Amino acid sequence: MFRTAELGRKVEKSEYRKREVVLREELLQAQQDLRGDARFPVIVVFAGVDGAGKGQTVNVLNAWMDPRWLVTRAYGEPSEEERQRPEYWRFWRDLPAKGRIGFFLSSWYSKPLLDKVYGRINLADFDERLDRIIAFENAQADDGAVIIKFWMHLSREAQRQRLKSLEKDPRTRWQIKESSWDHWRLYDQFVAASERIIMRTNTGKAPFTIVEGTDPCYRSLTVGVIIRDVIRKRLEAVRLADKVKAGLHVDNGFGEVVRADQPLYQPAVDLSADAATPVLTVLDALDMSKCLSKEAYAEELLKYQARLNMLHRKAVEKGVSTLLVFEGPDAAGKGGAIRRVTAALDARNYRVRPFAAPTDEEQAHHYLWRFWRHLSSAGRVTIYDRSWYGRVLVERVQGYASEQEWRRAYAEINDFEAQLTEQGIVLMKYWIHVTRDEQLARFKDREQTPHKRWKLTDEDWRNREKWDEYALAVNDMVQYTSTSATPWILVEGNDKRYGRIKVLKTLCKKLETVLGGEGPKPS
Amino acid sequence: MFRTAELGRKVEKSEYRKREVVLREELLQAQQDLRGDARFPVIVVFAGVDGAGKGQTVNVLNAWMDPRWLVTRAYGEPSEEERQRPEYWRFWRDLPAKGRIGFFLSSWYSKPLLDKVYGRINLADFDERLDRIIAFENAQADDGAVIIKFWMHLSREAQRQRLKSLEKDPRTRWQIKESSWDHWRLYDQFVAASERIIMRTNTGKAPFTIVEGTDPCYRSLTVGVIIRDVIRKRLEAVRLADKVKAGLHVDNGFGEVVRADQPLYQPAVDLSADAATPVLTVLDALDMSKCLSKEAYAEELLKYQARLNMLHRKAVEKGVSTLLVFEGPDAAGKGGAIRRVTAALDARNYRVRPFAAPTDEEQAHHYLWRFWRHLSSAGRVTIYDRSWYGRVLVERVQGYASEQEWRRAYAEINDFEAQLTEQGIVLMKYWIHVTRDEQLARFKDREQTPHKRWKLTDEDWRNREKWDEYALAVNDMVQYTSTSATPWILVEGNDKRYGRIKVLKTLCKKLETVLGGEGPKPS
Repeated sequence: MFRTAELGRKVEKSEYRKREVVLREELLQAQQDLRGDARFPVIVVFAGVDGAGKGQTVNVLNAWMDPRWLVTRAYGEPSEEERQRPEYWRFWRDLPAKGRIGFFLSSWYSKPLLDKVYGRINLADFDERLDRIIAFENAQADDGAVIIKFWMHLSREAQRQRLKSLEKDPRTRWQIKESSWDHWRLYDQFVAASERIIMRTNTGKAPFTIVEGTDPCYRSLTVGVIIRDVIRKRLEAVRLADKVKAGLHVDNGFGEVVRADQPLYQPAVDLSADAATPVLTVLDALDMSKCLSKEAYAEELLKYQARLNMLHRKAVEKGVSTLLVFEGPDAAGKGGAIRRVTAALDARNYRVRPFAAPTDEEQAHHYLWRFWRHLSSAGRVTIYDRSWYGRVLVERVQGYASEQEWRRAYAEINDFEAQLTEQGIVLMKYWIHVTRDEQLARFKDREQTPHKRWKLTDEDWRNREKWDEYALAVNDMVQYTSTSATPWILVEGNDKRYGRIKVLKTLCKKLETVLGGEGPKPS
Repeated sequence: MFRTAELGRKVEKSEYRKREVVLREELLQAQQDLRGDARFPVIVVFAGVDGAGKGQTVNVLNAWMDPRWLVTRAYGEPSEEERQRPEYWRFWRDLPAKGRIGFFLSSWYSKPLLDKVYGRINLADFDERLDRIIAFENAQADDGAVIIKFWMHLSREAQRQRLKSLEKDPRTRWQIKESSWDHWRLYDQFVAASERIIMRTNTGKAPFTIVEGTDPCYRSLTVGVIIRDVIRKRLEAVRLADKVKAGLHVDNGFGEVVRADQPLYQPAVDLSADAATPVLTVLDALDMSKCLSKEAYAEELLKYQARLNMLHRKAVEKGVSTLLVFEGPDAAGKGGAIRRVTAALDARNYRVRPFAAPTDEEQAHHYLWRFWRHLSSAGRVTIYDRSWYGRVLVERVQGYASEQEWRRAYAEINDFEAQLTEQGIVLMKYWIHVTRDEQLARFKDREQTPHKRWKLTDEDWRNREKWDEYALAVNDMVQYTSTSATPWILVEGNDKRYGRIKVLKTLCKKLETVLGGEGPKPS
């Protein structure tokens, strides 16, 4: 989930100075319009990793914006007065009025997170607390409030460096509390709990945006741009709704009638629209030059297929099911990788399911229905060649699913996968990647080789045209559905040999963790 | 919550026969239209008390409707095949396709309920299971499915009689399982768990209707009418949305533009619209002739005020806060009852807060904000003369809140009150009732008595005009917000003396339960 916020996104100082001037002006204007309209409050939540610059960002925003129509609240241990009332009393008390903006630091997310990380509550209790958060935020959003939530992230190493540098400087040393290093040592627990928070509370009404916190220029601009855009967007929606009420027939340019209470979605995280910096996605961070020699490949292939076969027999014996998902651009080599896996399996115990367009019967049901019905019984390996992720990939990019549909699919997919893993099913998700150039080379090869020509369709070319949109869709998919329990494995597939071995290797490793180290009983 | 389903609603046999013929025809037509449109499935869930006629009602519906476009599913212990897959696999598998109807018996609600009642899971785990239900139902509803949920109810005594009569008849004896009487003995636990289920899963997308299960004629007609109306309503909405898409400007008669995905709410439970039987509400079940003589009143007043004073001192000592809510028709005697309570309290430790129209500042916030901010610190008694229930009473009836707003207020209020009681606050909710005639007499008295005239406003007369709508609103309020933890106390207030003593008595009883029997330390 956080991999998308460890890409080293940054904005140069000179660039920052130029854009800051414009953005301040725009934020002030947005604030003024908000106050003039005065029909909804804006609630901005800053949560995330210690040292990721939450406080500093809020300070920057306070300097940029008009403090008279802004409240900033940070919460420590509750006072005597606060302890005598329900936990949320202080949050309710501080909610901004219509037309105003409230910045909330270490707010309602803080205590549940710490309680979970320090083991003071179990998972079910944690979820109860998150339910309360959802109910609280929903109540505000249903009443018209705009809720913007930022999760500021640092990688483990970046956090360490940040704490060290704060500690070294006498002027910032006070920022390091006793707990700061304790928290760093619990980094993995923080990440796991944070993932759950975001997964559950990232609702359409109160979406979370994960922001990479390493570079101060990048994070301030990102946060500022998002606040500006969300306020503008809502004000525009309110104005259109007024026209609708006044009897004018207004549509949003797509033939859809606009309503005042239409769900508000966060704009894309990237600054692409108005940044000089190129858009970075998780795919850009892959080292696509990775490769393997023929000899090394032959050796590794034998080794991992043998190991996989042993693990597979053990899994069958224990009744442990495995579910593999393969996604990736056309001609990335999904089929080849799948065959290298199945070669190591017992034919009676696996099934490969390619998913193309749904049948009539499937079309008459929820899009997840066809994936539910094909779940295998215990001990089997099921390989999905394309999967439910089509909803947030091809259906998003080609417009087969509406924005509302693919946005809510992340939560639906997470819930579906949670039910699989709770059942004990081993779930592995592979994104086999190729670069744009390599894809073109493979397309051309297919065109020219008679026995491969059938593989290349018009749709492949159509998809290729939308390469950048796919990259953004993959980035979002990884951001919202790659969790520590069911991570996406991104496979560098320009070299087919390297890719296939990576698939086998990671699969073996996962199965070993699940099944334990020893081999199966001799048969 | 279930008091509204213990009113003895029934439909006479002759009346039933007449209406059945028409309803069958209408249901078949609805089914045919649904199939013709084929753009959404209908999922009907039957849950509730053993012996409340769930199975019989489904049989009746199957006889009435066309079985070809209908599936009925009931679930027992999972099979070997089902156990090897996630719990919801079998539910997903059986979901009806678009254009079809599915009846679900002992479905996804069954196991969580039984596990909770038998103590196999704790409250937090129970809520996790309910979250899964909500996610499941939301996924279907978001995809366009219509979800109708019935909770069939019997009072404890009615259930006992029903089980006995089933047992006596050799033809029905098989219906009584070993567990049936066990369940009856756990009646209170069933009610508490059921309340929580309904409170949490009664969402706008998948609302629950509580149906009184005693009379077979009443329950079959009720269920049939609701299914008919919900299908008709949605088909109508889909048709209107088509017109909107086709570029026609359509409104719903209230100047609001209609959309295909507009939230679907359940129609009122009562058959009022097409029933010969009069509408029954919880208020009709009150014995308004109850009264108390002057002498008995004087004695009881002294007794309960003394007891309340003692309990009050003890509560202050222990830091236990009390929050009293008073609602009721104008001139019902709320003020008088409140004064009889405060007379027994230490003036430093209580506060009466009358709530009329909100201030400007309050208007600029969520409607619950002003109630949150007035929460007192520990050990205090706060008396709310009118309260947050205004949202579902006057605001609903006078149209100040939209249907969506007051509908979602039930859940918001339940969540708010849960936070109060979790904090250890004793919450008592009183509905002081008078009959319509008695109110008129009091209004006239006020008009004619100079020192009382100020009390009577035009608004009082306006509210009086909507008497029946208020009665329905009170009925719904009790249905959705009266729980075993925070029940509504309905006070028969035609005789002021009787009403005041009932308030004092129930308050003392509650405080005794909370504080324990012994008196405070001698001071």
